[in-house]
Amino acid sequence: MRNRSPGREFSKTRRPPAGKSRGKPEKKPAHASPQRPPPPSGQPSGRPSGAGQWLYGLHAVQAALANPRRKLGRAVLTPRAIESLGSQLLARVRVETADPAAIDRLLPAGAVHQGAALEAWPLKSRELDDILAEPGTEGRRVILVLDQLSDPHNVGAILRTAAAFGVTAVVVQDRNAPPQSGALAKAASGALDLIPYIEVVNIARTLDQLAERGFWRVALAGDGDVSLAEAAPVGDVALVLGSEGAGIRRLVREHCEASAFIPISKTIESLNVSNAAAIALYELRRA
Amino acid sequence: MRNRSPGREFSKTRRPPAGKSRGKPEKKPAHASPQRPPPPSGQPSGRPSGAGQWLYGLHAVQAALANPRRKLGRAVLTPRAIESLGSQLLARVRVETADPAAIDRLLPAGAVHQGAALEAWPLKSRELDDILAEPGTEGRRVILVLDQLSDPHNVGAILRTAAAFGVTAVVVQDRNAPPQSGALAKAASGALDLIPYIEVVNIARTLDQLAERGFWRVALAGDGDVSLAEAAPVGDVALVLGSEGAGIRRLVREHCEASAFIPISKTIESLNVSNAAAIALYELRRA
Repeated sequence: MRNRSPGREFSKTRRPPAGKSRGKPEKKPAHASPQRPPPPSGQPSGRPSGAGQWLYGLHAVQAALANPRRKLGRAVLTPRAIESLGSQLLARVRVETADPAAIDRLLPAGAVHQGAALEAWPLKSRELDDILAEPGTEGRRVILVLDQLSDPHNVGAILRTAAAFGVTAVVVQDRNAPPQSGALAKAASGALDLIPYIEVVNIARTLDQLAERGFWRVALAGDGDVSLAEAAPVGDVALVLGSEGAGIRRLVREHCEASAFIPISKTIESLNVSNAAAIALYELRRA
Repeated sequence: MRNRSPGREFSKTRRPPAGKSRGKPEKKPAHASPQRPPPPSGQPSGRPSGAGQWLYGLHAVQAALANPRRKLGRAVLTPRAIESLGSQLLARVRVETADPAAIDRLLPAGAVHQGAALEAWPLKSRELDDILAEPGTEGRRVILVLDQLSDPHNVGAILRTAAAFGVTAVVVQDRNAPPQSGALAKAASGALDLIPYIEVVNIARTLDQLAERGFWRVALAGDGDVSLAEAAPVGDVALVLGSEGAGIRRLVREHCEASAFIPISKTIESLNVSNAAAIALYELRRA
């Protein structure tokens, strides 16, 4: 039942390496496929055109509409959602009115869309150096580093909490992070458009770069050496979280100065990773 | 977009009142349907017999097997899961060996079962008085009260965190809580069998009973009066959480002595309810 043995830390990646297409794929401009037949009138088509995908849920759609860096297609909305979002935000996009059942059919089964679906392109990753060069806010800076977390609901919930606690950026490994799907954006409740989500090739190298810039690197792990409160000194912090199954990979952990645990009862093995992240961010903001 | 306006606090319940069948339905004994044909040999049937349901995931299955109060049917397991769970725990149940794909077919699409499915009957709710009469552990007692939370993943994650922080019991309203499904038990990672999950008819009345027993009642809400750290004095605490959509109902909130907020950035409206619960329980354990 223990799943944190060192032998499993080098778990296989869940997806094959991208090989030739390692670089970012060229994004096609919106509506770049003239061959594609237009949807029958009054009937929204099931797939967004081009390389966009459906975001859904009022908060996620609102945040994407308000993000000038976000490339958008069309919005499919109920009249109530149109009223809620407002004409100013919706001026950027083509709006189609639909009933909830028609929106259901555009989205994965069970998607809680609240009457709002928006065709959107994934945000391009920004450079960490650019983020760090921006004028800081008051207090310490916190950067969250997610080492191969794969569950979109967990990553989305972590983004939401990271935005709530004023985290500077969330860093993921480009080949081992969940795609910026509608499910992730919904769980993030708009935070995907509020907080820099930075995809890097090599997490260990990124941790070294953060150390050079004065960040104290803390690995959060059930078998950490000190309690989180003790491991959270003053100053900028890079907090590293591992996946629920395999934990933080050993190489990544070796690039941290400290490992910290959250004190919990022995009756349960570990916390859900998004709950652990929430507690850690709360604690870091207290210090 | 604001969804905490007082006018919406009395939101309609998601399910119609139970009407005539208001009391607990009579639980049938295991295998009470002799008419039901046995599954073809070597082919696990898709439905558990009688009124059981499938629990899945190693932690959830292990905890149910270890819980003497849990009525169980058969277990459908991969050889690896059998090895992991061990013969002692499995002595209680009939074990069928299956490959992962056969277990997939028993469960909802996408269920992460880790090779383990177990037919189990819902746990009977216990009486709060009995729980409170048990000898206490060290430190303050914390009881978590969930006011009409409906999402099984959130409730499951809250149970997991509640067990991690030694919560005495989790109280829900019987007609407005998610059923003890496999999804809830999986998210709870075994905690459904570790922590008393108490279904009551009337949450406001239960809060009054807790007050009589010396519990300080705190409502957790974005518009609370004091920060959580200030609202968490010494002594036993009943912490009330509301649903993500409607928040805590006004009547329930009126039965609390204090309302507390978690200090977050203005860029995001609220925390995910399970993350808010995790932070609150961590804070209560600090005090």
